[in-house]
Amino acid sequence: MSPPPEPGGSDTGTVRWRLRVAYDGAPFRGFAAQEGQTTVAGVLAAALERVSRTPVAITCAGRTDAGVHALDQVVHVDLPTDRSAALDPATLVRSLNRLLGPEVVVREAGPAPDGFDARRSAVARRYRYLVVNAPVPDPLLAPLAWHVADPLDLRSLRAGADALVGEHDFRAFCRRVPGTGPEVPIHRRVTDARWTLLERRPVRPVAAGTVGPAPVGEERGPGLLPAEGRLYAFEIEANAFCHQMVRALVGTLVAVGRGRLRPADVPAILVSADRARAAQPAPPHGLTLMAVRYRE
Amino acid sequence: MSPPPEPGGSDTGTVRWRLRVAYDGAPFRGFAAQEGQTTVAGVLAAALERVSRTPVAITCAGRTDAGVHALDQVVHVDLPTDRSAALDPATLVRSLNRLLGPEVVVREAGPAPDGFDARRSAVARRYRYLVVNAPVPDPLLAPLAWHVADPLDLRSLRAGADALVGEHDFRAFCRRVPGTGPEVPIHRRVTDARWTLLERRPVRPVAAGTVGPAPVGEERGPGLLPAEGRLYAFEIEANAFCHQMVRALVGTLVAVGRGRLRPADVPAILVSADRARAAQPAPPHGLTLMAVRYRE
Repeated sequence: MSPPPEPGGSDTGTVRWRLRVAYDGAPFRGFAAQEGQTTVAGVLAAALERVSRTPVAITCAGRTDAGVHALDQVVHVDLPTDRSAALDPATLVRSLNRLLGPEVVVREAGPAPDGFDARRSAVARRYRYLVVNAPVPDPLLAPLAWHVADPLDLRSLRAGADALVGEHDFRAFCRRVPGTGPEVPIHRRVTDARWTLLERRPVRPVAAGTVGPAPVGEERGPGLLPAEGRLYAFEIEANAFCHQMVRALVGTLVAVGRGRLRPADVPAILVSADRARAAQPAPPHGLTLMAVRYRE
Repeated sequence: MSPPPEPGGSDTGTVRWRLRVAYDGAPFRGFAAQEGQTTVAGVLAAALERVSRTPVAITCAGRTDAGVHALDQVVHVDLPTDRSAALDPATLVRSLNRLLGPEVVVREAGPAPDGFDARRSAVARRYRYLVVNAPVPDPLLAPLAWHVADPLDLRSLRAGADALVGEHDFRAFCRRVPGTGPEVPIHRRVTDARWTLLERRPVRPVAAGTVGPAPVGEERGPGLLPAEGRLYAFEIEANAFCHQMVRALVGTLVAVGRGRLRPADVPAILVSADRARAAQPAPPHGLTLMAVRYRE
């Protein structure tokens, strides 16, 4: 069942538009508009206002923190019916992308389905966290991945992540909402939590002067894997996330991968509901909002 | 046969060190030191001089242009024997990486083999050029890949690249060396030139609430592929490259992939030795020096 149309929806002289947006989080103080700060919502609203010639308020599916990236953030805005009628989706995308810098890209825009709300209609969010595990950092991956020099054990990372799947009280991994006490449970349903080792870039044979096709096994060679060491991706999907939840989980799982905690400590920390027992949150630049799911 | 030891080599009271270096080219006016410019050689020399307390001159395997990256640039420096004796390779790497920013990383350092010269001993260089082919740019790949909106035909890209393998006069794809005329041939031996389509990030099934492992085919999912569209990698290896050769080749091959030129135009441009017939060079930020090969 879809939620009822919002005030400002199509029944009050406005048309709701849905946009899919990708951004590099580095230059922004997060998604949500803040007076006097450069935010994704701020630059996006400015571009939309310029194109639609009307003030807009942006609602997003997942408010990302400062430094966190997105490949598929979903937002909605309500435009007066007459302004909306003047907009062609493909032209709007082109106009917005001309106004926005390379850090924010509108992938798609169009009138939203009836009753659509970018935040309230979303049934799941998916995040990815990248970790480069190598003795020295990789300058090309530095903006997108946390560099961890200590060797990480993939089996331990995975055992720790397994404990997260299911519905749990995630208080131990959440930054407190202002005005709420530590006694308030924060239930979230995690439907997927997995670590993937992205394949190491194969070393090509050194025979100078060799001509001809490389073995098939090298076809994945030229990808964006690190210069050396390993690139790990943690992916997690849940109905919703509380503040800093993915980063707190990754910080704790990496402590498990390093051997500072045991995999069994992860469910124990969950049950304790004690934020002091979780590790420091992983840095924001490794995190990307990958997808938002809606009911069909 | 190795070249004879350089003046300043181990026979004159100095020890030659070899370093493997990775860098993000964006903030630099290229590799080679230039008075009053921020260059990779400049910041690397400053760090080496601070650690070794002696002036150093840096020789590299491949002088990359402004904005071009490297994952495995090789350099040598000659240090006075007494200074060299005080340096431990692992400590030197750590000290240099503490002094350098995240844009330049020393991956390895140590005394070079007898007669080693980073430039003259190199028998081959390997470069990679990344192209994102999608209607809109990808903000996370923007620093590393050229965004081409027009659809590219992989078969044409590959047919064009095939014409490059072998020994040819590459004048049509080289920026002239100051002081030489257009009549001077520039012979280079290309041993490998290939386009790879990096797999599209698979779209995961939208069934909210699904728990359990994803199909095996999704294991490559969380990599750094673009939000949409395709990521192409062009890899080329040759005994040596002239100035802007890879970027000029990629510019021309992408014109072939777009259908503005035919694959057969590539060998025709080579034979013509006419720079005016090659396309504009591709932008520098898509290019990375991947490897330098030496005789065993």
